[in-house]
Amino acid sequence: MYYPEPISKLIDSFMKLPGIGPKTASRLAFYVLEMKEEDVLEFGKALVNAKRQLSDCSICHHITDRDPCSICDDSHRDQSMICVVQDSKDVIAMEKMKEYTGLYHVLHGAISPMDGVGPEDIRVPDLLKRLHDETVQELILATDPTIEGEATAMYISRLVKPTGIKTTRIAHGLPVGGDLEYADEVTLSKALEGRREL
Amino acid sequence: MYYPEPISKLIDSFMKLPGIGPKTASRLAFYVLEMKEEDVLEFGKALVNAKRQLSDCSICHHITDRDPCSICDDSHRDQSMICVVQDSKDVIAMEKMKEYTGLYHVLHGAISPMDGVGPEDIRVPDLLKRLHDETVQELILATDPTIEGEATAMYISRLVKPTGIKTTRIAHGLPVGGDLEYADEVTLSKALEGRREL
Repeated sequence: MYYPEPISKLIDSFMKLPGIGPKTASRLAFYVLEMKEEDVLEFGKALVNAKRQLSDCSICHHITDRDPCSICDDSHRDQSMICVVQDSKDVIAMEKMKEYTGLYHVLHGAISPMDGVGPEDIRVPDLLKRLHDETVQELILATDPTIEGEATAMYISRLVKPTGIKTTRIAHGLPVGGDLEYADEVTLSKALEGRREL
Repeated sequence: MYYPEPISKLIDSFMKLPGIGPKTASRLAFYVLEMKEEDVLEFGKALVNAKRQLSDCSICHHITDRDPCSICDDSHRDQSMICVVQDSKDVIAMEKMKEYTGLYHVLHGAISPMDGVGPEDIRVPDLLKRLHDETVQELILATDPTIEGEATAMYISRLVKPTGIKTTRIAHGLPVGGDLEYADEVTLSKALEGRREL
């Protein structure tokens, strides 16, 4: 019995989060004791509400507190473009950019035969259903630049090609502010391959 | 509006914790959405319970869920020794060692004139009251080896000296497993000063 029970339970809960070990968990738990009571109550409520009130949008599968989500429901957005991403966090990264005004489709994963994840396990069938709607003219494949992400993009583009809908892949190359000297060979070769006339 | 409201509230709550910035907070919040509902409910309950059920022990000021705390209340412990520490976390570090069987006194801070913290702001008066009890024979000053911790230890030892109670300071020196080559000069000089005959 090192800790009084309420604090050891809190430490256990913190330790369930990724990247938080026993030392950090105990530091956070003791910090909670010093916090204002209203902040702690709000934290507790936020945890439960986030878990209970959020679900997947039935159209794009982005995380949302109402269905359809505020992006699918926004008639000012460009209904002719769908950007396909792996994760809800990717939608948020895209939205922060404030330049893309089309719709999204969140796959919640990528095809990975090694892990037994096939096209049916991610939201590919739902994506194909959305393409029956004739307003869609372009599918932007913005899956991660990893083996799984590339494979998923290739798979979807082959499926979609016969429908005549334009499929594009976001560009790979040097990140802005990056240093050519430190770029890995694959990125550099992609940057060269994707060069454009000025 | 990048995030649905329930998740942005949760991110805000995570960001109030020390060492957690916006990126980590968002990663943790999305992780919570993937957690089992019962684990999330337990986390929320643990937060509120830790804040509401824990208070300071009226004797030693260690954090506790009952008063007096289980250490002060344990008649098997050596009532003749009090170990003075700055923080409840220090008590837990000492208890993990499983060698000390005496009592504690948690100051909740250290004397620091720069920050306007005087002896009355930490639990020094309460400590002096405990010393009136004649069972106490030794006071172990285990405040941190920092300027504030040293000053606090010196201050308490001078106050207590006239009462005839033995006051000791925990040893400073090279940490076990440490490397002499990498020790800082102050630690090394303390280690030399505190040398003992074999």
